[in-house]
Amino acid sequence: MENLSAIKRIENKVKQIPDAISLAQGIPAFSSHSLIQKEVIKAIMNNKVDKYSPIQGIPELRLIISEKLQLSGMRYDTNTEIIVTAGGIEALSATMLGVIQPGDEVLYLSPAYPYYERIIRMAKGRPVPIPLNEKAGWNLDIDLLKNKITGKTKAIILCNPNNPTGSLLSKKELVTIGILAQRHKFIIISDDIYENFYYKEKPFNLCSLPQFRKQIVRIVSFSKDFALSGWRIGFVHADKELIKKILPIHDCLVNCAPVVSQYAALAALKNEKIILSEYMKIYAKRRLLMGNYLEELSDYLSFIWPGGAYYFFPKIIGVVDSESFCFDILEKVGLGTVPGDDFGPGGKGHMRLCFGKSDSEIIEGMKRLTTYFKKYHMPKPMI
Amino acid sequence: MENLSAIKRIENKVKQIPDAISLAQGIPAFSSHSLIQKEVIKAIMNNKVDKYSPIQGIPELRLIISEKLQLSGMRYDTNTEIIVTAGGIEALSATMLGVIQPGDEVLYLSPAYPYYERIIRMAKGRPVPIPLNEKAGWNLDIDLLKNKITGKTKAIILCNPNNPTGSLLSKKELVTIGILAQRHKFIIISDDIYENFYYKEKPFNLCSLPQFRKQIVRIVSFSKDFALSGWRIGFVHADKELIKKILPIHDCLVNCAPVVSQYAALAALKNEKIILSEYMKIYAKRRLLMGNYLEELSDYLSFIWPGGAYYFFPKIIGVVDSESFCFDILEKVGLGTVPGDDFGPGGKGHMRLCFGKSDSEIIEGMKRLTTYFKKYHMPKPMI
Repeated sequence: MENLSAIKRIENKVKQIPDAISLAQGIPAFSSHSLIQKEVIKAIMNNKVDKYSPIQGIPELRLIISEKLQLSGMRYDTNTEIIVTAGGIEALSATMLGVIQPGDEVLYLSPAYPYYERIIRMAKGRPVPIPLNEKAGWNLDIDLLKNKITGKTKAIILCNPNNPTGSLLSKKELVTIGILAQRHKFIIISDDIYENFYYKEKPFNLCSLPQFRKQIVRIVSFSKDFALSGWRIGFVHADKELIKKILPIHDCLVNCAPVVSQYAALAALKNEKIILSEYMKIYAKRRLLMGNYLEELSDYLSFIWPGGAYYFFPKIIGVVDSESFCFDILEKVGLGTVPGDDFGPGGKGHMRLCFGKSDSEIIEGMKRLTTYFKKYHMPKPMI
Repeated sequence: MENLSAIKRIENKVKQIPDAISLAQGIPAFSSHSLIQKEVIKAIMNNKVDKYSPIQGIPELRLIISEKLQLSGMRYDTNTEIIVTAGGIEALSATMLGVIQPGDEVLYLSPAYPYYERIIRMAKGRPVPIPLNEKAGWNLDIDLLKNKITGKTKAIILCNPNNPTGSLLSKKELVTIGILAQRHKFIIISDDIYENFYYKEKPFNLCSLPQFRKQIVRIVSFSKDFALSGWRIGFVHADKELIKKILPIHDCLVNCAPVVSQYAALAALKNEKIILSEYMKIYAKRRLLMGNYLEELSDYLSFIWPGGAYYFFPKIIGVVDSESFCFDILEKVGLGTVPGDDFGPGGKGHMRLCFGKSDSEIIEGMKRLTTYFKKYHMPKPMI
């Protein structure tokens, strides 16, 4: 299916090659936590998951979401400002279809999750990438952003921590974006699905400043941090005026999130501390594991240690067409990685590696990558 | 939330009134079948449901779908012509967003499931209702349909058996629509979610005639016949050229259908004969139960016995504004029903009653409806 993203084409090819392994798609290696499985099975046996829930989601789940948000300084009403969705992607699509009209411009920071562009186009909007500055640690150039704002700008998508770069936007950058959004009347769609993955400071959250609440739609998913990707469960929260635009679209897309998965999310949040502290310790170790292999490859690539998310995004010396490069790696050493081009113009010449996978996959994958570079790739010349 | 459909507003109000009962929303009274629960729990405990499935759905499910289709004379390729979706509604939305462009016209038969109009509008299309002829048993007037076809007509949505009328399109009507679709190059979106609910002859299926395969997208759901509404699971099948347009949208909407629900669907199809024969016998009885109450109310309403689906759609004598009428019933006797207006202009002056509910709900509901008519409603005058 040639109209699929490179990441999906790589993953499809990985499945066809015996012994190939993948550090491509961002799928956590963990199975659903036993605490979650137990609660879900109870809900199934008690016949609680069979019928449509309210469009917004089961009240118990919305209540615990609202309580958790409040602990992070975000006040959102359980009944009118939270919608449980079929994963982060449905939240994003429902938001986009709900808030933009054909021809509206939507900004996003590049390199970016490739679905941003696809979803903007699906909603007949015009995607406007803002390249991040790699040399300054993937920082945002505010003047560049200001130059891209026009009378048609309707929204900006932020991903913090960023996929694929693992970089975090600072409080100062976020507040500046908030002020620009107020001034030019556009919405901030904050895709916070990696919010619990951070290795130094905690990402700052603009929703904790009440003066920006009318400007922000925030998207959260259980796929990555709770390793529930197959369950398709997440949520969106925003001021009720924005939710009024998103809810009828969510209703048209899925009626309600899968109820069985809503119980999985409920169990996840009830046991949040136990589950996340267990997982996040492991991710921190895997970040070091993968990063140390990459340090050894400095003749072939350069990279910035990610402050968040679970990806490395090295720039490969001498590579322009990263798609051919990544398919060549897969063919020669049986390792799946994502071409940087898949993340837009800002990703040119890069590749993405996910350390959400198991230790053994990371070790074997990085060995194969090392073999590939030593055997088939030119090092940085000395002149 | 005033931007919700009348059915959702009625259901919300039912929940607020103590002792109110509802014959409004089409939710089967059954819990998930024990055969399905057992298989799903096994899949959860074997960690099979945690990670994204292929976009199209798990191969085992697509295979059994393809085999079942073949038994009904429909040949669709497992890998390129079937997509498992997050319910029938996601299938419909992905299809609409995939095949129409802003400004395209989409025909649908009226009265109709209210989401057709909403989904067409979400995709920025123009909804064009074709009123069915109630006096001729909700038949389609082909000349009326022909008159509505323009150069901008891109699709027609059929629901067979029809919600809310319970009427079936004949083979002759369907073939004529197929020929018109070929001649004028539009697509038939066949919403067959009530295909297993029929009380006389089996609905004819246009996909079994290979000459129309390039014209048809067929939508099937597990929500109604297998009573799996909360699981959000269904599928779409079509010629691969059409699937190529729908798949990238499905990917943007949900990535993949919830995997746990894909296992529910797999168990449903494996046990199809046992489960459906059990349920369909009960529906046939409930149809008689509700219909007999309605026969007693012939001074106040007229109706056609449904050949399929699980609704009655009586026309109420002397009622113009069916929305005020249905809200009045709910207030005075605590019974939720759906205003006919919710189904478009063809539903004016009608109400919809669902016999998917339990026997006791149907009996109590029909008693309340009888009380309402006898106490508060004018009978048909004798002059």
